[in-house]
Amino acid sequence: MTTKVMKFGGSSLATAERIRSSARIAAEEARNGTSIAVVVSAMGKTTEGLLGLAGEVSCAMNRREMDQLLASGEQQSAALFSLALQDLGIPARSYTGAQAGIQAQGMCMDGRISSIDPTGIAEGFKRGECAIVAGFQGLGAGGEVLTLGRGGSDLTAVALAAALNAEDCLIYTDVDGIFSADPNRVPAARLIDCLSYEECLEMAVLGAKVMQARSVEVAAKYRVPVAVLSSFHPGGGTRVQEQCVREDLVVRAVVPDRGVAKVAVLGVPDVPGIAARLFVGLAERGITVEMIIQSTMRGQVNDIAFLVKKGLLGEAIDACREVAREIDAQGVNFDVEVGRVSIVGAGIANHVDVPGKMFSVLAREGINLDMIASSSVSITCVVALDRLDDAARALHRAFIEEEGQE
Amino acid sequence: MTTKVMKFGGSSLATAERIRSSARIAAEEARNGTSIAVVVSAMGKTTEGLLGLAGEVSCAMNRREMDQLLASGEQQSAALFSLALQDLGIPARSYTGAQAGIQAQGMCMDGRISSIDPTGIAEGFKRGECAIVAGFQGLGAGGEVLTLGRGGSDLTAVALAAALNAEDCLIYTDVDGIFSADPNRVPAARLIDCLSYEECLEMAVLGAKVMQARSVEVAAKYRVPVAVLSSFHPGGGTRVQEQCVREDLVVRAVVPDRGVAKVAVLGVPDVPGIAARLFVGLAERGITVEMIIQSTMRGQVNDIAFLVKKGLLGEAIDACREVAREIDAQGVNFDVEVGRVSIVGAGIANHVDVPGKMFSVLAREGINLDMIASSSVSITCVVALDRLDDAARALHRAFIEEEGQE
Repeated sequence: MTTKVMKFGGSSLATAERIRSSARIAAEEARNGTSIAVVVSAMGKTTEGLLGLAGEVSCAMNRREMDQLLASGEQQSAALFSLALQDLGIPARSYTGAQAGIQAQGMCMDGRISSIDPTGIAEGFKRGECAIVAGFQGLGAGGEVLTLGRGGSDLTAVALAAALNAEDCLIYTDVDGIFSADPNRVPAARLIDCLSYEECLEMAVLGAKVMQARSVEVAAKYRVPVAVLSSFHPGGGTRVQEQCVREDLVVRAVVPDRGVAKVAVLGVPDVPGIAARLFVGLAERGITVEMIIQSTMRGQVNDIAFLVKKGLLGEAIDACREVAREIDAQGVNFDVEVGRVSIVGAGIANHVDVPGKMFSVLAREGINLDMIASSSVSITCVVALDRLDDAARALHRAFIEEEGQE
Repeated sequence: MTTKVMKFGGSSLATAERIRSSARIAAEEARNGTSIAVVVSAMGKTTEGLLGLAGEVSCAMNRREMDQLLASGEQQSAALFSLALQDLGIPARSYTGAQAGIQAQGMCMDGRISSIDPTGIAEGFKRGECAIVAGFQGLGAGGEVLTLGRGGSDLTAVALAAALNAEDCLIYTDVDGIFSADPNRVPAARLIDCLSYEECLEMAVLGAKVMQARSVEVAAKYRVPVAVLSSFHPGGGTRVQEQCVREDLVVRAVVPDRGVAKVAVLGVPDVPGIAARLFVGLAERGITVEMIIQSTMRGQVNDIAFLVKKGLLGEAIDACREVAREIDAQGVNFDVEVGRVSIVGAGIANHVDVPGKMFSVLAREGINLDMIASSSVSITCVVALDRLDDAARALHRAFIEEEGQE
């Protein structure tokens, strides 16, 4: 008996009609004799609505109460999805995270799944029932509900697929799959049929709106085959799996990211251990930094620049100023008028011509490069924010549209 | 240290502003040093909204899934209420029914509280926390949520007050308390300051929109002092307690009820045991009957009439026809154009003149009496539906308005 996990996001459950329509997709799989566990998000904008109410009744949102509040949204859609499946003649049973045997630990509103005991769900399968599981939540210590933070329902789905040893984890969304660039900004963007975990993870980390990085990491760790699909029309979809060999395309996707700001700590004394003190100091203050670049052109002192998420900029500047004083640096400046554009593909490391081609394409467009970084599966350039879309389109044309024709 | 239970209904929690306003009432009690457990209903029309969604996704509403769905509404308002209290500087913690130690048993959507272990809440009190408890739910067998049926949040409040040995159970609603008649139909209706459990229970059973009968029964059983109050403006309120001696008024309230229909089984053979077979047969089919009247004027056969809730009429007629055939009765008829009007007061049994006065008042109004029944605390007359309000006004005038002046 094969087992599949199917996950439906908020837009696939936004109305009663959307729930019925998504339930028909699950029913079709169930009628094929597959054991189905469905993981659901909260309906449409339910979570935003609850956050809004919480903001109206309280200034300081106590995180424990937020968990109690937010977990209810997924519980509602699980019960409604179960009712919809039953209405289609498919036996079904809804489970809260706790009832599904999902244990979590860590901070409120940012829990981690620590273990899953799928015995109850597996017994339901034996009775011929589909399991409808409230995503985004687990049972913490002392019977408390913990929610899993952003993208938590994807995480529930992938972790449950691992625990059930499912042959597939199907993530249903309101788009057709993962694209080679954001179609709203790069009209020539193409649906990607297949990505490796590594490529998908790199895209997520670099700011693409695909699955959350944590979910991809768990999928990679337990080798869960994932597919990202549309619940609005059939077909298409992107498979995310261990290996995805595409000889024709070195670069799989172009990822622009408008969500970062640049911070520079100027005149850091060039003494061993000082850079470490800077970044340990930032980490202690909860500031996550990306793309650290150190320039050593000025002799005794260095400038150290890095990116932070725009939402963290205020805290980052405060923290940097404080740490700068401690390490006797000359000052801190920042720039919000920047963006980063990345090219992602597992073959990049093996194709020595890729970086040169990338920089030439951007130079031909007259786009200055502010910072450059690379990994084995990506190269990233920081550019002026008002040229970000031009950069993405030019790179997409050179590496994906024209490449396919050569 | 004194303990109070405060219960807020849906209209007292309908918006963020209403939640904040109700939280201020609870905060005031907490600042007096009282240990407070707050029981909440779902916000405003949340439950109706969820029922509507369930109806849209499914024709047959599986009751187990309905429990999973509906329980979430109270969980949301509990978390929001807790946040609102914290915002007022009052330490608070929300509890689902399960977390509050409320065990339930029985049918889905109609659970009964079987036990309450208030240890967790009492420990919270020691830490100086208010407990905010999701009403209307308990933990059933196997970790399942059971909701408690209509008026379930009142039941949670009263049962929790008993378990905590609270000195008061304050039920906050959108009206000022319990009135001597429905003020919308009897403009001269007065707020009742105090009722005995027995009187309040009789009013509930006879169709008054006060606390549900089950909650009053539990309050009476455990001698929980209850007060019904408005969360919209302070003061007023009706106390419901063991004894409420009012020498001046024999009749405390006039209760009209438009929600019943009359069913008559005609020509029932006058043989011992036949009436029993009729009502056992109806009970087996789940038909609850009220106000059974048997007339024996026709010799060998009797007519047996009774009332059923209007919503049950269709089923009741089917069941009666079936049972009528089994017991060889002549037929079944029914009348929906009836209502019943009752006078309620603990002193009725001791005042022999009350029945005569009631019938005289109605006769003076030219209102025919279709059926009559009485208990130690009430007398009920079935009258034509289009005269029901006239009957209620006349009885209120004679027994309450004029009586107070004598």
